[in-house]
Amino acid sequence: MTSTLTAADVKRHKWWGWGLDDSRFRWDNKPAFAPFAKNRVGVDLTAKDPGPDPELTDFDVPASRLPEDVREALAGIVGQENLRVDDEYRVVHSFGRSLADLFRVRSGDFARLVDAVVYPGSEEEVAAVLRLVLEKDLVLIPYGGGSCISGSVTPDVSEERPILTVNIGRMREVLDIDETAGLARIEAGAYGPDLEEQLTARGWTLGHFPDSFTYSTLGGWAATRSSGMQSDKYGDIEDIVRGMRVVHPRGTVVTKPIPGRDSGPSVHEMILGSEGRLGVITECTVQVHRIAPVRQVIAYMYPDWEHGIRGMHAIARSTDVSPTFTRLSDGPETEFSLTMVKEPTSTKGKVAAKVQDGLFAYLRSQGWDTSGEMSISYVCFEGSKEAVDAQKTIVKKIVKANGGITLGAGPGAIYDQKKFDTPYLRDFLMSYDVFGDVCDTGATWSKINEVHARVYEAYYAKLEELGLDGFMFCHMSHSYHSGACLYFTFAVPYSATEKALEEYQACKDAVQQAFVDLGSTVSHHHAVGTEHQPWITEDIGEGGVALIQGLFEGSDPGRNLNPGKIVSP
Amino acid sequence: MTSTLTAADVKRHKWWGWGLDDSRFRWDNKPAFAPFAKNRVGVDLTAKDPGPDPELTDFDVPASRLPEDVREALAGIVGQENLRVDDEYRVVHSFGRSLADLFRVRSGDFARLVDAVVYPGSEEEVAAVLRLVLEKDLVLIPYGGGSCISGSVTPDVSEERPILTVNIGRMREVLDIDETAGLARIEAGAYGPDLEEQLTARGWTLGHFPDSFTYSTLGGWAATRSSGMQSDKYGDIEDIVRGMRVVHPRGTVVTKPIPGRDSGPSVHEMILGSEGRLGVITECTVQVHRIAPVRQVIAYMYPDWEHGIRGMHAIARSTDVSPTFTRLSDGPETEFSLTMVKEPTSTKGKVAAKVQDGLFAYLRSQGWDTSGEMSISYVCFEGSKEAVDAQKTIVKKIVKANGGITLGAGPGAIYDQKKFDTPYLRDFLMSYDVFGDVCDTGATWSKINEVHARVYEAYYAKLEELGLDGFMFCHMSHSYHSGACLYFTFAVPYSATEKALEEYQACKDAVQQAFVDLGSTVSHHHAVGTEHQPWITEDIGEGGVALIQGLFEGSDPGRNLNPGKIVSP
Repeated sequence: MTSTLTAADVKRHKWWGWGLDDSRFRWDNKPAFAPFAKNRVGVDLTAKDPGPDPELTDFDVPASRLPEDVREALAGIVGQENLRVDDEYRVVHSFGRSLADLFRVRSGDFARLVDAVVYPGSEEEVAAVLRLVLEKDLVLIPYGGGSCISGSVTPDVSEERPILTVNIGRMREVLDIDETAGLARIEAGAYGPDLEEQLTARGWTLGHFPDSFTYSTLGGWAATRSSGMQSDKYGDIEDIVRGMRVVHPRGTVVTKPIPGRDSGPSVHEMILGSEGRLGVITECTVQVHRIAPVRQVIAYMYPDWEHGIRGMHAIARSTDVSPTFTRLSDGPETEFSLTMVKEPTSTKGKVAAKVQDGLFAYLRSQGWDTSGEMSISYVCFEGSKEAVDAQKTIVKKIVKANGGITLGAGPGAIYDQKKFDTPYLRDFLMSYDVFGDVCDTGATWSKINEVHARVYEAYYAKLEELGLDGFMFCHMSHSYHSGACLYFTFAVPYSATEKALEEYQACKDAVQQAFVDLGSTVSHHHAVGTEHQPWITEDIGEGGVALIQGLFEGSDPGRNLNPGKIVSP
Repeated sequence: MTSTLTAADVKRHKWWGWGLDDSRFRWDNKPAFAPFAKNRVGVDLTAKDPGPDPELTDFDVPASRLPEDVREALAGIVGQENLRVDDEYRVVHSFGRSLADLFRVRSGDFARLVDAVVYPGSEEEVAAVLRLVLEKDLVLIPYGGGSCISGSVTPDVSEERPILTVNIGRMREVLDIDETAGLARIEAGAYGPDLEEQLTARGWTLGHFPDSFTYSTLGGWAATRSSGMQSDKYGDIEDIVRGMRVVHPRGTVVTKPIPGRDSGPSVHEMILGSEGRLGVITECTVQVHRIAPVRQVIAYMYPDWEHGIRGMHAIARSTDVSPTFTRLSDGPETEFSLTMVKEPTSTKGKVAAKVQDGLFAYLRSQGWDTSGEMSISYVCFEGSKEAVDAQKTIVKKIVKANGGITLGAGPGAIYDQKKFDTPYLRDFLMSYDVFGDVCDTGATWSKINEVHARVYEAYYAKLEELGLDGFMFCHMSHSYHSGACLYFTFAVPYSATEKALEEYQACKDAVQQAFVDLGSTVSHHHAVGTEHQPWITEDIGEGGVALIQGLFEGSDPGRNLNPGKIVSP
């Protein structure tokens, strides 16, 4: 079955930033934001006019190097309308959305763009494209939603061969739901909203909601080992995806969606996280769940991070509760999140603001430091009303026993509505000569406070060395038996445009090096690509790198499949 | 740190069967067993005297081919007392405990034995042995408890090079428990009882209890993707083992015990299930849990398999209960299990037998067929007394809603005590010219009844074709979101000793082929080795086989590490 959609039906990012052209971060309706930016990050938003959006026509865009015979062959496979070589398509598909990507794309640093974007409409067409790639010695880069922040879709600047990006966005149907087994077969090009809409219409949910949800695809999640904010309940993508179809140089690899994992070394777990180096994922069979009748996000406040972590760990350990997600912001992130509150316009909103003022006054009277240490937590409950109520009661007790208080459903609902908006902030900050980025890692419960503290130390030491202002905040999410994910966000006003990337890299390096020095992972769920590759040997050891190299070499000796990603060569 | 134990401290199977010399299956105290064997399996236990145990001295045991220089080098590495070349050690270590293994070993079919058994006492000694293996072009077969039933530890009869078995049973310490993270570092040579005793002494449990528990090791579990009977709560071994140390040709591969899984293709999941082809696992970091205050196994009875499966699925789907295990025996297995009940000697036992008679009479009056269809189920609950009681109440309702009744804790406790005794039955049956074996697979909830029915059909069709009597029974265990494991046991009185293996293979082939024809897996947790290899391509496809071959080739181009297992070459 070939998709009836065309390339024109597949959404894509604005060429210079996150999301569609009409979506922006606004600060004029958030009264606490500008003062925070000035005091904490060191940038005066009122002092600069960011000016108009960049225009692609202001830059020299290198021409496509696609040979004519390849162009004809590709058009023959996918149809002329599904083969794009125009500048905007090639620019959009040559970059993910890492800070470095955004910087390069906005400054017109187009050293090496992909030469064509191909939109196949079926697994057979993907296979035909791959055969052509091998026959003509081309390079093939699979592309999902282009939301990756580790360089996974960006070509190597030294690549001499013609480069094709394969965008499978035309393939986005929920093909089948096995309602007895709770398994759905879904085409890998489905964006988060695509597949959730199709599932929801039949009463099901995947439950996978990464921050990138609106601009990432099922195939991309599998290819980069994504993790969604509800992983406590629904699992990481490696738990959710039970079977795959993968167009591989030796034919289609099929992993069966059968309970229990593979015999022998897991083929399934080789494909997961392979970032296109083992082929193109065209279809996934995933676990789906009935939509819970009741869903509530409740907010809690702890006097500080350490109390909060004790509460989070107690919830994770409890056999009596199983929340959908648990999240704890540290003091700086809590302070930041309060700046994201919009100016109240309704009477209800104004009352809520008064209640918050009163609450903070009360907490100060109880000895809390409400200006910096307080840590807000969100816990999501799903189930029948009775089950949700029972779990809320237990969690409330656990929070109290660990020194926290329950704020209630109001702030939780606000968090839940805004959860996919954060990526727009980076584009906004860049307009004010500020780089902002995120780094994530996994840590055991026994080392989580140490990792948290040492990363801050490493980051601020680097800022001091560079003579830069800057801010950092962190939350804990993705809770497991033995630990959780720490997710750091940082923002720095760089000293000059020509030094920005260097200064950014120095800060990111300090954070990543702290992760691996402490025995944590190079990333919890942001893949490896090229940007995390400097730490891959420290992460999985020389033996681990050798195993992966052997795997890639065996499948793709000509290095035609997304070469250079994860490990080199 | 080198182990202070010697080879003599490491337990091993009797050379001709399961377990230590003094353990046997007895039927003289089970009044229903002999009639069952006669009526259902077609063997008259009273008509034959099985005679004395076999004696190794009755057979020609080929001499070790270990070259003198290798012997000296090995003795230099591990010490003379930890290098064994005597017949009994070599015979024991040349076979797992599959039906074919038992048959061959009891008939003295010693075509190719390993040439030496090496017992290293530390990771460094394992590494030194591996270096010697590569330098001298030897073959190395890692050995855990030797309980495997898929040929994973048996040398290829055509192997010309000297073959070493590396038994790491001297390395069996719990090295460290991180009580905050719930992680324990344990040497891979620890048998189940070894590590549970060490953990229990400190209030912890691994919760991993495969049928082979008493004769299998942590490293063996990881190398073969073991699953324990409590996997519903504690997970399969791939969930339990979070980090490993593996002596690999290019050095020690270390996977970090950090929450969340690897970036990139999972190195951890390549090692799991690799059956020694990627090196020797010397240490695992595993999830451990506090021992639950209360543990109860409750028995239930359903009128038939289909009602039972509906009940099991409803329990698996319920978000209100999370049992430690759920198990359902079909009609034939239920009938078999009733024959395992010992003749009551106490007054209490006699009363219990009367109660059972009364219960069955009552069920017949309710329209149940108590002679063949009834399906017994066991569900295990752990937690506080309150939590266990609450869960029992919910499960009781689910069972009732699906047509079943609650039998109570008595039969459950008996099941729980006998759970590791089954493997002895095969040795016993063989003494009566009967082969008995097991085959397991994973199936989705939507196909589980079809797989169950079709496997029976395929098996009995084969028996009819062969003109043989025989019996089969099955249980469902290891419950997951989308399905469960089906575990088939069969017994056949073979026509003649010289035809036994051929007849056995025909029966096993029929079952295995039915599995893969129905889209199920070649095995749920019995590894691949050589015995499941005929179906590996149908299981994971040519692409999957190619990926695994590439992986092995890259790590071990000389094929020195357990060659021929999982895939060929």
